[in-house]
Amino acid sequence: MATGEKKPATKKLEELGESMLSEVNNGESPTFETLLRSRGNILYDEAIGCLRLGNKMEQRTFLNVAQARKFMQTVAVAAKCKKFIEEESHTSIRGLFYQLKYSLGEEFDEELFSEQEESNPLIEDLEVALKLKREDLNLNTDRKGVVAGSVVLMDKFGGESTEIDCAKQGRSGWMVPSDVDNGMDFISVDADWVLVVEKDALWQRLNEDKFWKKENCVLITPKGQASRGCRRLIRKLANKKLPVIVFTDNDAWGWYIYWAIKTGSMNLAYLANDIATPEAKFIGMTMQDLKDYDFLNKLTIKAKDVDVKRAEELLSYPWISMHKPWVEELKTVIKTKRKIEQDALQGPRLSFVGEYLREKMAKKKFLP
Amino acid sequence: MATGEKKPATKKLEELGESMLSEVNNGESPTFETLLRSRGNILYDEAIGCLRLGNKMEQRTFLNVAQARKFMQTVAVAAKCKKFIEEESHTSIRGLFYQLKYSLGEEFDEELFSEQEESNPLIEDLEVALKLKREDLNLNTDRKGVVAGSVVLMDKFGGESTEIDCAKQGRSGWMVPSDVDNGMDFISVDADWVLVVEKDALWQRLNEDKFWKKENCVLITPKGQASRGCRRLIRKLANKKLPVIVFTDNDAWGWYIYWAIKTGSMNLAYLANDIATPEAKFIGMTMQDLKDYDFLNKLTIKAKDVDVKRAEELLSYPWISMHKPWVEELKTVIKTKRKIEQDALQGPRLSFVGEYLREKMAKKKFLP
Repeated sequence: MATGEKKPATKKLEELGESMLSEVNNGESPTFETLLRSRGNILYDEAIGCLRLGNKMEQRTFLNVAQARKFMQTVAVAAKCKKFIEEESHTSIRGLFYQLKYSLGEEFDEELFSEQEESNPLIEDLEVALKLKREDLNLNTDRKGVVAGSVVLMDKFGGESTEIDCAKQGRSGWMVPSDVDNGMDFISVDADWVLVVEKDALWQRLNEDKFWKKENCVLITPKGQASRGCRRLIRKLANKKLPVIVFTDNDAWGWYIYWAIKTGSMNLAYLANDIATPEAKFIGMTMQDLKDYDFLNKLTIKAKDVDVKRAEELLSYPWISMHKPWVEELKTVIKTKRKIEQDALQGPRLSFVGEYLREKMAKKKFLP
Repeated sequence: MATGEKKPATKKLEELGESMLSEVNNGESPTFETLLRSRGNILYDEAIGCLRLGNKMEQRTFLNVAQARKFMQTVAVAAKCKKFIEEESHTSIRGLFYQLKYSLGEEFDEELFSEQEESNPLIEDLEVALKLKREDLNLNTDRKGVVAGSVVLMDKFGGESTEIDCAKQGRSGWMVPSDVDNGMDFISVDADWVLVVEKDALWQRLNEDKFWKKENCVLITPKGQASRGCRRLIRKLANKKLPVIVFTDNDAWGWYIYWAIKTGSMNLAYLANDIATPEAKFIGMTMQDLKDYDFLNKLTIKAKDVDVKRAEELLSYPWISMHKPWVEELKTVIKTKRKIEQDALQGPRLSFVGEYLREKMAKKKFLP
């Protein structure tokens, strides 16, 4: 971007301000419009295969006693974000909260932001209204997740450019940042597919065995539930036509990780296909594995109530119950009340994790 | 290490086995001896300035009905670790648990390891008895923490050597691995001091402002409570005579992070000065900051019950109550029931975090 050229986020924020100003100049109350993010406006979009918001709108207007406070807060958040972008500085939503508390604390009789819980939903409002991610507004999110593989990135950050080679990160791997879009570009992706492994311990196991090198994949662990940055990175790799294969425990937590990557999640439905990867497939663990790998039978553990309850819940979602193999899988867990952790594959020998994955990849034994 | 040369851990494990064998050959019951790790055998060592185990011993013998099971389990864990080292493969304690469950499940009538809770304390027993860390036994631990700064490391791992330059990690930083000793060497450390920042959000803020470059420090965030690897890395940097400065919230969690880095913690007392950094100093947040930075007064938040209770607890520890400034600090929190988050320093401007740290560094305003 040439010096002096405005970023898309700045333009959109200015347009928002200008539209409010023109409303004032026309003698109208300034308004702010955004899509409703409540459960009733979240739908599964079959065409794209992920959760997204419907068309129900919410309007906030200044000259309305019930809405004035929230309106002012929204404008204050927008103004701060515009400043962060102009200053080329990032902060967390906690940092934003303190900036708001600091600068607005004395201008208003009552504290405009007493608790962070008040500022969080306003950021989501802005993201939706402006069709931007908070990362585009210079707000950092919790980062988590590690990558190894033949991926080279250019990281333009703090006035410097750094080449990151995910194949040269040793035992550590490259840590997925908050923002994988702004100032972040792929230089090359020389891998054939993406393997997402729930647990860091298994990632370390596979990294030590150079699984990603031998199988030419990008090895990613979200370290549990995938962060926004991690989901976005997976989406970007899928955009490069790399198949995405997910490997988790077969329990409540593991299924949640998979479906959040594949179809998105309720609370991030507003990001829809920016963050979801409907092409993703599930390699394991599955109850079918007990038939194919006999030794696993003595390494199962008792499914917890939360696992069984979650399995029942998942069966009620149309985008899951439409897949017969998933119905079978979940019903078997409910019936047998057993589960298998991915760690159990290390039972016979530490390297068996890789053997299992190779065999299932070769036979294309995936759940959809 | 030359090919074929035995690692110290292998030698120690073999000595343990040989001593048991010679007991058997002498017609005695094989025994296993280790230091007690219970509260009653943890003491604060004033000379070195950290928590360590006392001299109370625990003996486990095979020919004792009450101890036979635990004895066999200990030997099984030792045998597995020896195998991992010989195979040059690492796993987590969960992986070890499944290996034990797999290979012992059929040899014994009862399941020797039904729950991981049984294998964990045995690993600690071995660490203490052999005077080794579990990392030396090829067991990975949870890894957490990120580094930026003029530190170059050589990472020998999985048959390859990778040079890691912590000054060239862009927005991400270098992720602290589980083991920073075996196959991990400093090539160069060209920094003057170490800054440990509790929260990743603040680390990102300081990294973006190139604080570590301008102030020539190693910038580390443990991301909350420091992992074993992170504490060990801080210790190793302190061994290079770099002063270690810790920056946290002034609350229960922040204090815990600081004191665990400085004096070690109860549950890792057996690692004593391998993992503690008694030289560490505390830069903030402190109640004194409210006098020096007036704006902070409107950005304090209410201390929770847990903060007040923790402050009272800390005052009862002799290694804390010996420091007058700490007594004053903790008493002020108890009295005012207020606390300050490090994030609050972003109130006036995002870059103020760095200004605060520079000023306090220049004036040497530390708590001991």
